[in-house]
Amino acid sequence: MDQIQAIVFDAYGTLFDVHSVVEACDRLFPDKGTQISEVWRAKQLEYSWLRSLMGRYQDFRQVTEDALRYACHSLGLPITDAQEKELMEDYLHLNCYKEVHEVLKQIQNHQMAIFSNGTLDMLNSLVQNTGLDPYISDVLSVDEAKVYKPAPRAYTLVLDKLKLEREQILFVSANAWDVVGAKSFGFHVAWVNRGNQTFAELGKNPDLILSDLGGLIASYWALRQKSE
Amino acid sequence: MDQIQAIVFDAYGTLFDVHSVVEACDRLFPDKGTQISEVWRAKQLEYSWLRSLMGRYQDFRQVTEDALRYACHSLGLPITDAQEKELMEDYLHLNCYKEVHEVLKQIQNHQMAIFSNGTLDMLNSLVQNTGLDPYISDVLSVDEAKVYKPAPRAYTLVLDKLKLEREQILFVSANAWDVVGAKSFGFHVAWVNRGNQTFAELGKNPDLILSDLGGLIASYWALRQKSE
Repeated sequence: MDQIQAIVFDAYGTLFDVHSVVEACDRLFPDKGTQISEVWRAKQLEYSWLRSLMGRYQDFRQVTEDALRYACHSLGLPITDAQEKELMEDYLHLNCYKEVHEVLKQIQNHQMAIFSNGTLDMLNSLVQNTGLDPYISDVLSVDEAKVYKPAPRAYTLVLDKLKLEREQILFVSANAWDVVGAKSFGFHVAWVNRGNQTFAELGKNPDLILSDLGGLIASYWALRQKSE
Repeated sequence: MDQIQAIVFDAYGTLFDVHSVVEACDRLFPDKGTQISEVWRAKQLEYSWLRSLMGRYQDFRQVTEDALRYACHSLGLPITDAQEKELMEDYLHLNCYKEVHEVLKQIQNHQMAIFSNGTLDMLNSLVQNTGLDPYISDVLSVDEAKVYKPAPRAYTLVLDKLKLEREQILFVSANAWDVVGAKSFGFHVAWVNRGNQTFAELGKNPDLILSDLGGLIASYWALRQKSE
């Protein structure tokens, strides 16, 4: 088996905390921030899968906006265009999880990329706003493939862009469905299980389980040695 | 536009109440029935979409069982194989919604079919156990296409089996994502909105909105006249 050549990170939920919009939601809709944020995220994912299945792709900015509108309507909270714009702007200013900077700094001699459902605009904003740009060589978006993860055609983009084979990739995601998709595609996969979640019952399991990105360094070397 | 020639019903959530397993869940896990039932249904759908997207189809019995196992684990409720089997058996004995018999009886001079994610075994059991068999001419399962709704390839099965064109079908579903999939495919579509839900933000809307199946008869005739 070839050595791992690149570490590829999912973005939302893995490097960036999607629920850091809670505060912004709370500002516009007092005490409803957590609820909005949860429905917003759930529908954002659901819509990405459904649109992919129907063959009716729209980019992640649109899907995210649609999901926000649904979240507010379903919770009985009328949202104006200006408020929608404000919250969408906040989505470009999500926080990193607290350990991210330190971990990426420690492994900065490796090739690291981001591969996400987000558009390049969204992702580049996030990487710059959080100061991760010195560590990340490639920011890759499913937008070029016009289909969302976990469709195999989406993951193929990583190979095309990085000019690597499947087994040369260590893919890192906190999203169980993304872990299954990537594993099923043939990557080595680490699942970041923040908050002691139950893994998906989808017939594939991660190679590594980490409680946060901090565990990546030791585990990565173990996996590299195992694969040599 | 051709006249509507057949009324095709979705099964789970539309004719049959998936949450009628609450009582069975409560029997095994006191006071946890509602919670189990909700997670069970959410994951059942999620897994059907994800497996379709990954090209890793498993039939609906398997997906339903996997979703049940996830639901129990994620709620910290260990489930034995025997309990799993017991609850899966209950899934073949879901109740009809209360108005279903009367409505189907009233329109029994029309061709009526069921088109569902469920396997033929699961669907035929349900139709027989609830006494709907006199009204339903065709029970159709995505299992033959090996992909779940809302993939267009799934809905195509209805045309192949009923030998009809898209615009000759009135499809009836309580599931917003199924309504969008069917509308996007080209059926006439009625959304059964039990419990005043918010419709999906997926860029397509139903032709008819009914608060339960009772509204179908008058609306159906209005739609038929409109389409003539």
